[in-house]
Amino acid sequence: MLELIKQRRSIRRYTAEPVEESAVGALLEAAMAAPSANNRRPWEFVVVTEAPLRQALAGIHRWSYMCAQAPVVLAVLADPDADPDHWVEDAAAATQNLLLAATAQGLGSVWVAVHPRPEREAAVRRILQVPDRLRVLCLVAVGHPAETRPARRNPYEVAKVHGERYGRPWVQS
Amino acid sequence: MLELIKQRRSIRRYTAEPVEESAVGALLEAAMAAPSANNRRPWEFVVVTEAPLRQALAGIHRWSYMCAQAPVVLAVLADPDADPDHWVEDAAAATQNLLLAATAQGLGSVWVAVHPRPEREAAVRRILQVPDRLRVLCLVAVGHPAETRPARRNPYEVAKVHGERYGRPWVQS
Repeated sequence: MLELIKQRRSIRRYTAEPVEESAVGALLEAAMAAPSANNRRPWEFVVVTEAPLRQALAGIHRWSYMCAQAPVVLAVLADPDADPDHWVEDAAAATQNLLLAATAQGLGSVWVAVHPRPEREAAVRRILQVPDRLRVLCLVAVGHPAETRPARRNPYEVAKVHGERYGRPWVQS
Repeated sequence: MLELIKQRRSIRRYTAEPVEESAVGALLEAAMAAPSANNRRPWEFVVVTEAPLRQALAGIHRWSYMCAQAPVVLAVLADPDADPDHWVEDAAAATQNLLLAATAQGLGSVWVAVHPRPEREAAVRRILQVPDRLRVLCLVAVGHPAETRPARRNPYEVAKVHGERYGRPWVQS
């Protein structure tokens, strides 16, 4: 598990091989196994495979182009009425589970930020016919990787870890 | 990995056994292996083991009592100047990695929400001497579990998955 967490990298090039429905189901199950504040589970998902829709999503901003090549794009939505305070972090935790479940299945994925840019959210809302009551956190492009990226050698940054109170060195460091 | 994701549950009772420093180091490494928008990596962490500090954190709201019993509490902070738009989701993804890395090591953990309640954040800021420039997303209590919670039998909710456009059934469902 710890190795898989480090092996997960943002993959932006994909082969033409489709992603099996059962694999997408496993991603969604992992996403919905995330914790959520007071178990409100505000998340919802749209599974996009049709090329014209993915092309449209690829055009919403400079860094969403991967949606055209990836055979599956998952839109991660949330209902703020379910939890106005915590829907962003709940949906983010679900997204992280989704990325890890992709890595575990040998799939590549990348988190494409949408929230909190109103113009990005409006574009996704229009393309996927998302109702007003839901917010759009992000898109996740998923596919079989056509590039390899090694695990980060050393994600740990000593300067960002503090002991007991902020600014005190932590013993291990 | 998929099984571990489902096995992760919020654990609120812990034994007195301490958590090894190397295990805490693995949690922090996993957290810092999370994706972040534009690789800004806005997260920072405080590792709290001293009982008086954990007692104080246990008192900040009704659902933070686990901080007293858990031998380690990690405060997840973020620097909004590093990414004003995405620090919440980046720090949330790091927190989810942290919880999964705890599960992978046989440790119990629970995500204690702080953000976006100003009074909770002010309390953590005072107790841990967090500087004004940083925000507090949450606390994570970590310890050896003194309760067992089975994996969620079925986290998947059909009604929350849509196909191609919002409101269309997804084929697998």
